[in-house]
Amino acid sequence: MLNRQWILARRPTGRIEPGVLELRQVPVSLPDEGQALIQNLYLSLDPTHRIWMSDMPQYMPPVALGEVMRAGTLARVVQSRTPELAPGDLVSAQGGYQDYALVQPQAVSRINPVAGTPLVHYMGLLSHIGATAYFGLLEIGQPQPGQTVVVSGAAGAVGSIAGQLAKISQARVIGIAGSAAKCGYVTGELGFDAAIDYRREDVAARLRTLAPQGVDVYFDNTGGDILDAVLQNLALNARIALCGLIASYNAQGEWAGPRYYRNLLMKRAMVKGFIVSDYRARFGEVMPKLAAWHAQGLLKYRVDVQPGLENAPAYLNRLFDGDNQGKLVVQISNDHP
Amino acid sequence: MLNRQWILARRPTGRIEPGVLELRQVPVSLPDEGQALIQNLYLSLDPTHRIWMSDMPQYMPPVALGEVMRAGTLARVVQSRTPELAPGDLVSAQGGYQDYALVQPQAVSRINPVAGTPLVHYMGLLSHIGATAYFGLLEIGQPQPGQTVVVSGAAGAVGSIAGQLAKISQARVIGIAGSAAKCGYVTGELGFDAAIDYRREDVAARLRTLAPQGVDVYFDNTGGDILDAVLQNLALNARIALCGLIASYNAQGEWAGPRYYRNLLMKRAMVKGFIVSDYRARFGEVMPKLAAWHAQGLLKYRVDVQPGLENAPAYLNRLFDGDNQGKLVVQISNDHP
Repeated sequence: MLNRQWILARRPTGRIEPGVLELRQVPVSLPDEGQALIQNLYLSLDPTHRIWMSDMPQYMPPVALGEVMRAGTLARVVQSRTPELAPGDLVSAQGGYQDYALVQPQAVSRINPVAGTPLVHYMGLLSHIGATAYFGLLEIGQPQPGQTVVVSGAAGAVGSIAGQLAKISQARVIGIAGSAAKCGYVTGELGFDAAIDYRREDVAARLRTLAPQGVDVYFDNTGGDILDAVLQNLALNARIALCGLIASYNAQGEWAGPRYYRNLLMKRAMVKGFIVSDYRARFGEVMPKLAAWHAQGLLKYRVDVQPGLENAPAYLNRLFDGDNQGKLVVQISNDHP
Repeated sequence: MLNRQWILARRPTGRIEPGVLELRQVPVSLPDEGQALIQNLYLSLDPTHRIWMSDMPQYMPPVALGEVMRAGTLARVVQSRTPELAPGDLVSAQGGYQDYALVQPQAVSRINPVAGTPLVHYMGLLSHIGATAYFGLLEIGQPQPGQTVVVSGAAGAVGSIAGQLAKISQARVIGIAGSAAKCGYVTGELGFDAAIDYRREDVAARLRTLAPQGVDVYFDNTGGDILDAVLQNLALNARIALCGLIASYNAQGEWAGPRYYRNLLMKRAMVKGFIVSDYRARFGEVMPKLAAWHAQGLLKYRVDVQPGLENAPAYLNRLFDGDNQGKLVVQISNDHP
């Protein structure tokens, strides 16, 4: 039995060009005592993968050259030498860009799909993605009824949920996204109050019009010029949940800092960077809430499933080109119930 | 009776050059019903005066051209047409760069000096200065015993108190200041564990050596390159109390943002801008604590008293040149008990 693996062959300097990841085939390794062999069914493509490919200081060790590229997967146990996992079990794991992986039971979370919920939702709304939106928006942002919330990457996996959670909190929500179609999606389908197309509009000027009292909460997925536009429009005591800086991940050399950083002082504002894995112990408390809002029609969610492990690096670039809508997932195998 | 007044004649573009403030003499205005006339004894020179001179968006309205330059003062009531103030009362007021001012009683705080405490301390440790250090360091920074705290502007009015409050919290404290003399002052007299002379040392490299586990709390008075050096050395879950950005106040055109802003994400760090006036309702709870620590010898404090209202603009530049040590105060009148 063969295992296809995408190996980090060299570190990217900008976009993920051909040759950064290399595909190889190796025999599947069998589990040692205490391990299980899993088959990856779905691979989650996340902007943070670009960070892991770089050797700059970061929140986890970067992926080493020659290693299988790291990624979260939804997988099925195929062999087990640990009593905690049995063949057929579904798990959320850090399975990587490959067909098969060996895991320890304490490094995976078992998934018990509710009837009627597509499996792929456990890669999105009911996974680290939904939890990221939940903790960033509700615990760091703390929007109050009637306040104004801005979300960048609004049509993306996390942003689309964050904006809807703001609506559930009775706040006004302005989404920022990269096309007229995405803007139409967040206002039309997701119920955002307004949207700004950052490729065609002056974001700072539009925010002045749309949020004349200022922005109380900003859920930042992008950093860059959009962050500066929001900093120019902060309300007093604003909160910024710093979730990602995707505008900068492909930048070469030094990143430019936000030019309006000073407004954090002028507006007594707060910025808090966060990583969802710090909240992992509380996922169990959050998932039923997300599932309930979804069942009530208050949380809509789109998954963009693309086929083929062999295409994963090409899909990954879509996150940075702004070409995807909703959570981007690669289907690795059809071989699941 | 004449009143000397420094008027904002034009907005500065960099340093406060001659001609930005102009001295004029006008007759003293007498109080209307409900007002009191105060004589300013001491004038507090604060970095924020430079912000008030600019017409950029800020946390209070800028001083208008042709107006008396705004400043906090310690003053004595000389005439009163309000029952709440009597001639001879000492007050803390926004008396401005002038000999005399008219005030409403609700806009001033009465000072009841404790025997043995020099009056000028009510312009420093026991004023907005001490409160700034207290709320920024203890409420935003929340240093824990054994954690590492870094304070920039460490020999300055606020920084010297912030660092000592960190010691009282049983944290390790590293001061950053602009001369060997200042560094010697904070380690020798104030009890900081270490100091870095940012004019002669590589701050980022020295922090790597002095704080190998990273910086847990940063009390930022300066922004600029020092902020970037600290951002490169953050511990996980670090807190930054953003008190001032004095490195940038004289900058022309756009300010550069911190190049290592991304590390707020990588280290799940928090930045909170604050203005001490937001905490004014709690000054009464804080001043007795500061006074007690001072009496116990745990909080040392230096006031740099310079004579003559006529010299105030020249003294103000010292704050930006890094030439002063301790709280900078101008003595306007000797005429006090």
